[in-house]
This record gives sequence, C-alpha cells and structure tokens, in this order.
Amino acid sequence: MTGAAPSNRVRLVREHKRARYDRGTIDSILDAGLVAHLGFVDRGQPFAIPTLHARVGDLVYVHGSSASRALRAVDGGLPACLTVTHLDGIVLSRSAFEHDINYRSAILLGEMSAVGEEAEKRLALEAFMERLIPGRWAEVRQPSRKELKATSIVVMPIDEASAKVRSGGPDDGDGEDGELDVWAGQIPISTELGEPLPDPALRDGIAVSAAALALVRARRPERSGSR
Amino acid sequence: MTGAAPSNRVRLVREHKRARYDRGTIDSILDAGLVAHLGFVDRGQPFAIPTLHARVGDLVYVHGSSASRALRAVDGGLPACLTVTHLDGIVLSRSAFEHDINYRSAILLGEMSAVGEEAEKRLALEAFMERLIPGRWAEVRQPSRKELKATSIVVMPIDEASAKVRSGGPDDGDGEDGELDVWAGQIPISTELGEPLPDPALRDGIAVSAAALALVRARRPERSGSR
Repeated sequence: MTGAAPSNRVRLVREHKRARYDRGTIDSILDAGLVAHLGFVDRGQPFAIPTLHARVGDLVYVHGSSASRALRAVDGGLPACLTVTHLDGIVLSRSAFEHDINYRSAILLGEMSAVGEEAEKRLALEAFMERLIPGRWAEVRQPSRKELKATSIVVMPIDEASAKVRSGGPDDGDGEDGELDVWAGQIPISTELGEPLPDPALRDGIAVSAAALALVRARRPERSGSR
Repeated sequence: MTGAAPSNRVRLVREHKRARYDRGTIDSILDAGLVAHLGFVDRGQPFAIPTLHARVGDLVYVHGSSASRALRAVDGGLPACLTVTHLDGIVLSRSAFEHDINYRSAILLGEMSAVGEEAEKRLALEAFMERLIPGRWAEVRQPSRKELKATSIVVMPIDEASAKVRSGGPDDGDGEDGELDVWAGQIPISTELGEPLPDPALRDGIAVSAAALALVRARRPERSGSR
C-alpha cells in the first residue's frame, strides 16, 4: 500500500495489500487506458458506460452523450465514478478458489459536470486524440464551431481516487496446496496494436500518418525494426 | 440494427445504426469478455467496479465483494448495470471530429441479487474458470465449504440488454473531407495471451497445464505450430 486513502469510500476494505493511493500510480493507470467506464445514475437506473477519457492535470475529461443526458436532468453536478481497468494476466493457482487476475485499476469518485465552453471542449478533444495517437491532432482538420457544439464532454476532478494492483504469480505455493500435483503459474495478457490499415477510399499519393506509425512502433518495442 | 429494443432505457438514442438487440450478439460479447464492469449505487454513490463474470443461460454471475456489500444494505435486489466492452481498433478520420473507436459493448440493466446457495456459488465459480480457461476446473483442487462461504457472488438476469458495435474504417471519404491531404485508416487492437509462465515455487516434474496450453493456442491460431 502506498499513501493514505483520501476518504473512507475509496479505502479498500478487502485485499488492502493491493491498494495504491498515490497520484503517480493513479495517473499512470488513467493515462495508459484506452477506454474508461463511467458510472452514474439516470432516473434511478445505474449505468456503467464505456467512453473515451483523458487526464489534463487534476481533471479527467470524458466523451459521451449518455452522461450528458443524465446531467441535463439535474441541477449542477451528478455523483459519478470513473474507472480504468487494465488486464495483465490470468493467475492459475493449485486450487479453484485461489485463481485470480493480474490487473491495474483506478477508480475516481466525485461529481461530474458538463463542459459548456467551446475552448475547453476543443482542449478535451485534443487531449483524447493526443492520448490515443500522439501527434495526430496536428495532422487533421480541426473541429469547426458546429462540430464543437455537437460534442458532449463531461469533466471529473481527481479528488477521491484509489488504485488496485495485482501482479505476479500464484500465492499458494507455500501452504498445503503447494504439495498438490497441479501445475501453477500465470498467462500474461497484453493489448497489441496492429499495423495501420489505409481507408479503401484514401486518395493516391498520401503517405501513411507519421503519428499512427510512431504509435504502433512505440507500443511494440520488442518488434521495432523487424517489420 | 438487429431486433427490437426490449425497453426504452436500453434503446440507443444516438448512433442507432450501431445498435444490436439480438441475444446472439449480446451473448457473444458477454462470453468473449475477460472482465466486466458492474454499475450500482452504494449509499448514494455510483460505482463502476471491474469484476469477473460468466453467463450461464439467461443469467450472468459476477464475482465481487463490493457489490455484495452494497446488496447487504438493501432489502431484496439492487438496480445494476453490467457492461462488457471489447476494443477492436482506433479509427483515424481526416477530421478530428470524426475520429472514433471500433468496439463491441454489451450492457445489461436490471436488478442484481446475492447468491446464497453453496451449490449455485460452486456453479458460478466453475463458470468463471471454464470461461477464462476451458478445462482448468478438472485440473485443480475443488473449493471447500469454507472457501465457498468466503466467496461473494452476485447474479443478474439477461432481460433488458443492448449491444453497440462499430467496425470498419473511417466514414468521411465520401464528403468534402475526402478531398483533404490527410491519411485516413484504422489501427487494429487485439488482446493477446502470452505463453504460460510457471510459478517459481512449482515442484519439479509437474507438466504444464493442458488447459492453459490449449487456451493460448486457441487464442492465437495464426501462430500455432510456430512456437
């Protein structure tokens, strides 16, 4: 465990050895995630909606019309939960009960609010894109005022946050189960990016996006140069 | 769009071309997901918690103590949302605004309830494991009564459900943006399993899990035989 829990609601009650409360860990999990799940309530029904997200300092911007629709039904902010989860592996223990998942997850609790300002919406769109594909923003047509108006952006502060991390192999080698004739270990899981595929409608003579190429190379250092 | 929305709450309002309401699509998204996010409210605070899940017929079982804790605070069931999301690619359009993600997501709305029966808990544990690593259940030590008692399982029916699917390249090749000198296309995303790694504490002479090997081979047909 690193740091102290900012509130009781985010303090891990079970498996507290897996808890992390430091901003470095929380930010790195948020920033490495390609997608977040946003939890909120709309007319009494809880939702957990997948969405793009981007951290800008102490704020996390989220893309999405469902959340904006829920916000329109209330005055001011709406209680929400933003979660980013990475799967890193499957842990195969000797007993069914001790099987587990290696993962990193970050959870923010707080109030979400709608972004109304055109300039802040533009900043959020740039942050979504630059986080997914660094350098792409400068390659593409910038958003028009009409497009910005049609974009729904929601923002949450990083205030009450916690992370949960499990890594490594099984834990049951020491005890009685360690004597069983059962194979134990782990299966690593990774998210891989393939080579950029051109739009069939792409006009001739347009070079492949430098940002896309750089991203694919950066995410696969072990194979760079081999293709 | 396939099928009809089972309720207004799950009907897609925007991007309705991406909606799927047929059970075949919904089940395949649920069954292929390694992790789900469970949305619910505990003492006024919405949560979206990553968890293992497994579909058994018309029910989805979910592993987790946070959800069970929330359930203990109410009589009967608790409104919940179960979401499984797969990322399949990044869509690079010619304009910032048209950038998108290829994905498949399934969302169930309904009431979750706690599983109390030992036999049903055992069935759910088996379903979690067999979905992650088919064949593993028969290889390992079965759960004891004490372990089953310590396991929190929650269940949700597949009743109000919808799926959302986006695939393919950018859509802006036809319009005015198609004339721009901007590369457009997609970057595929896939989830890859690595080779099984033995627990350093594994005793000598225990062969690698047949279930683990079969899983890794089945998930990577293009490489089978090459390692």
